[in-house]
Amino acid sequence: MAVYTQLAAEALEALVACYDVGALVSAKGIAEGVSNSNWLVETTGGEVGGGAAGGARYILTMYERRIDNADLPFFLGLLDHLSACGCPVPRTIHDREGAAFRLVEGKAVALIEFLPGISPDRPSAAQARAVGAALAQVHLAAQDFAMSRVNGLDPPASARTLQGCGETALAAIDPALPQAIALAAEVAQAWPGDLPRSVIHSDLFPDNVLMLRARVTGMIDFYFACTDAMAYDLAVTHAAWAFDKTGTRYEPAVGKALVAGYESVRPLELEERAALPLLARGAALRFVASRAEDWIETPAGALVARKDPMAFLRRHDFYAENGAAIFA
Amino acid sequence: MAVYTQLAAEALEALVACYDVGALVSAKGIAEGVSNSNWLVETTGGEVGGGAAGGARYILTMYERRIDNADLPFFLGLLDHLSACGCPVPRTIHDREGAAFRLVEGKAVALIEFLPGISPDRPSAAQARAVGAALAQVHLAAQDFAMSRVNGLDPPASARTLQGCGETALAAIDPALPQAIALAAEVAQAWPGDLPRSVIHSDLFPDNVLMLRARVTGMIDFYFACTDAMAYDLAVTHAAWAFDKTGTRYEPAVGKALVAGYESVRPLELEERAALPLLARGAALRFVASRAEDWIETPAGALVARKDPMAFLRRHDFYAENGAAIFA
Repeated sequence: MAVYTQLAAEALEALVACYDVGALVSAKGIAEGVSNSNWLVETTGGEVGGGAAGGARYILTMYERRIDNADLPFFLGLLDHLSACGCPVPRTIHDREGAAFRLVEGKAVALIEFLPGISPDRPSAAQARAVGAALAQVHLAAQDFAMSRVNGLDPPASARTLQGCGETALAAIDPALPQAIALAAEVAQAWPGDLPRSVIHSDLFPDNVLMLRARVTGMIDFYFACTDAMAYDLAVTHAAWAFDKTGTRYEPAVGKALVAGYESVRPLELEERAALPLLARGAALRFVASRAEDWIETPAGALVARKDPMAFLRRHDFYAENGAAIFA
Repeated sequence: MAVYTQLAAEALEALVACYDVGALVSAKGIAEGVSNSNWLVETTGGEVGGGAAGGARYILTMYERRIDNADLPFFLGLLDHLSACGCPVPRTIHDREGAAFRLVEGKAVALIEFLPGISPDRPSAAQARAVGAALAQVHLAAQDFAMSRVNGLDPPASARTLQGCGETALAAIDPALPQAIALAAEVAQAWPGDLPRSVIHSDLFPDNVLMLRARVTGMIDFYFACTDAMAYDLAVTHAAWAFDKTGTRYEPAVGKALVAGYESVRPLELEERAALPLLARGAALRFVASRAEDWIETPAGALVARKDPMAFLRRHDFYAENGAAIFA
């Protein structure tokens, strides 16, 4: 979460004038998103002579490091596709020339619909059920999305990342962490290649879901979206929602509700259900790998909080031991 | 600018329920204010059965380091007083028991009216004129505000701060900086004690003013407000608005418009006008002192950008040389 770039009032005004959204009324840098700068922007509204009470609100995103501009047509087109299909996903506002993103000071920016809602911190079972249903809705709607994108963070990639960190560096984080290298290799080896695919979110943590009570009002931050197994996305979401933050305590009611909600919209096929324990291990190891890499790259004194990879190794171990039972 | 504290969705909802503002609809941590955490909060609205298009918006401020809770009745009461007098200042929303602030996780929080507008980055003369007029309006309106607060950052305090930094540390920032010690002592010695007083903002940088074109829609961040000479506040505002950021280039049209705008509402007395060159030197040295102190206390590798005290020593030197002419 950060605002990496300062944009002067005059630059913001000039940018907003490229869109048919009325005049700029307010702009606040918001602490949201891990690798972008974001502003909550208000304008007088899109209609000619507009100026409805409260005006119109948007999220202005500036893409910083980590996001390749070549991927933006996929990410932004996906938002438009899902939104047009009725999924609770913000649409992209296109500029007067029809472009989904523009360049400002050499960086890509997009104007994105603002959606109400608050990210739950300790999700309830009712909330998890709603998120499961919304995830299945996205999977079904994305099946006729024309573009595709390779998953750069699949199990072989996680295995390579952990290998690259090395036993010594991993052991310095936690003595139990080096075993993740062998576990990731084992999971990558056994990974199923033939499960039903669609575009998946692949990072649907509670942070990336806006809710009003038990209703999903927004699914955001599709910047890891890619073409991969739908059941894997359910496994990622399970690992992200059904545990306390340290990965120590599993919340069975939340986990069960998530899967039930998903199946209320899209029932799992037999081989998907059978694969879930392994998919969940792979999902957990993906975050072990990315967190370990970030940990090693982030100086201990930095102001950015480092996230403990062990919180996901604990989830892996839970799935290895109990996956067959909880996904039965 | 920062969000120092994370507040969970559930904690935010419980907090908002203490006010008669409807239910929480959205909350975004915003990058605003130097020593507080702030959220832009939207609710369904204050009226029973409320829910107007767009809802009602507020700034939720959590007071972190630097602000003494004992000062909050003064700061928040001042907002209410000025707002009731028609000044473009956000009012404090009081909770159901009438309290202006509450404690959350041991920290004070206040819910403050949201005002539209954007802070100018390169203010025009027309904008400076409007800000001058708004500042005078605040000075007049605050004259019957019942509370008072001592200025803890007056010239003797600046002189002590610079003395405390020491010649060696100042010279390490810039070889020209140690002379500020003697200059601050000289200005403190000559400081007038009998100019007309009121409550002053004393930190009215463009960052702290929201504008729509040349209209002031909000004056914010009154957390340095205190009881002191009104002409000193005009001098602070002059130093903050009439130069480029490095203090190298004076913008005569902006400086002139600021004073003219002020005098369109409250003409300066003869002794105030005569004191302006000295007041402006004192204003500039105050920021030399605070920036030098921050610079020395902030590690070079920290992610927080350090502000160059020389940008205000240049302003001081400009006022010492040209103050009599530009304020004639």
